[in-house]
Amino acid sequence: MSNKNNVSISVIRRLPRYYRFLNDLLMQDVERISSDKLANIMGVTAPQIRQDLNCFGGFGQQGYGYNVLELKNEISKILGIKNKLDTILIGVGNLGRAILTHIDFDSKGFNFIAAFDKDSEIIGKKLFGKEILDINNIDEFFKINKPVIAILCIPKSESDIVYKKLISLGIKGFWNFSHFDLSVDNKDIIVENVHLEDSLLTLCYRVNELK
Amino acid sequence: MSNKNNVSISVIRRLPRYYRFLNDLLMQDVERISSDKLANIMGVTAPQIRQDLNCFGGFGQQGYGYNVLELKNEISKILGIKNKLDTILIGVGNLGRAILTHIDFDSKGFNFIAAFDKDSEIIGKKLFGKEILDINNIDEFFKINKPVIAILCIPKSESDIVYKKLISLGIKGFWNFSHFDLSVDNKDIIVENVHLEDSLLTLCYRVNELK
Repeated sequence: MSNKNNVSISVIRRLPRYYRFLNDLLMQDVERISSDKLANIMGVTAPQIRQDLNCFGGFGQQGYGYNVLELKNEISKILGIKNKLDTILIGVGNLGRAILTHIDFDSKGFNFIAAFDKDSEIIGKKLFGKEILDINNIDEFFKINKPVIAILCIPKSESDIVYKKLISLGIKGFWNFSHFDLSVDNKDIIVENVHLEDSLLTLCYRVNELK
Repeated sequence: MSNKNNVSISVIRRLPRYYRFLNDLLMQDVERISSDKLANIMGVTAPQIRQDLNCFGGFGQQGYGYNVLELKNEISKILGIKNKLDTILIGVGNLGRAILTHIDFDSKGFNFIAAFDKDSEIIGKKLFGKEILDINNIDEFFKINKPVIAILCIPKSESDIVYKKLISLGIKGFWNFSHFDLSVDNKDIIVENVHLEDSLLTLCYRVNELK
């Protein structure tokens, strides 16, 4: 039984990590695991795991632990991975290409349907089987297609206008790799900002602290 | 005055974001800013900002607010950006190339000195002015060079052996993009794991919740 209401964002952010570790366990043919053992390999505490999973109804059995495949499937359902959200990429530079190469969208609940750019040199070429389309023709595209997710790999200078345009066309979720925080004053729009440079600066601080 | 001891990891993780916003303010020629105003544009509270910055001695003046340039420079010092840590890339695939293209390492406290791969087709070619070297010759490289940071863009299957090898050679910090958590049981080694797929799955959950 899943009870998604009022689950805190920090619990939600931990779910993908459970999902990743459970996938790894399945690859190692592990069929069941105690919360103590799972906590140990994940570097968290067993009460934390039980508390997190209880937000969605809890899935373990006392004295048995968790069935790895069942728990993975439950978390997959909670995350909504099977829904396959139609997704477009805005900005086909090195980063955009790398993201499409590196990430297995299909297994993560997304269906990549098109990429857009403004560079006439690449418009019309193929990217992972889909044609790179002219960003200036995006209205036409939305008359036939209804993507809900946009991956933004564009310069900061273009971000504001593109963001507003995409919302007006019906985009509900942004995976933002551009060097700015998309601000969310609309509760019906979800933004995941990925700030690689923030992570790098944290590493910088922590390594300098070692000296 | 900086007092870095006992600063919590969550405060440290917020510093790069302050740094980013202060840079943006400077680009807009903003010379000084109140903590209320800064809090407003960053989407946090003014007490949070004052509390975070007080961990390092505090930098504002009552009735004046913060001098943007001074505060940026202080945070830059705290982060250790000027130290220019020598950095190598392990794994020159799409993702490795994209990271080198996308990130301005020099302005973030890092000095990119070499890239390594095992693919004979690309070994010897240039990447951002540095030769791509054979990973099998990495011991030779470390006899002359002393990089402290490694960016890992390698498959999970190779991660463990590469990680241990690099630690034995003297690497102190890892920026890890591979699909696994590097576990840290050595307090003298710093790891920043970047799990793009975890962020994507969080987006998946949150957009599905909208329906």
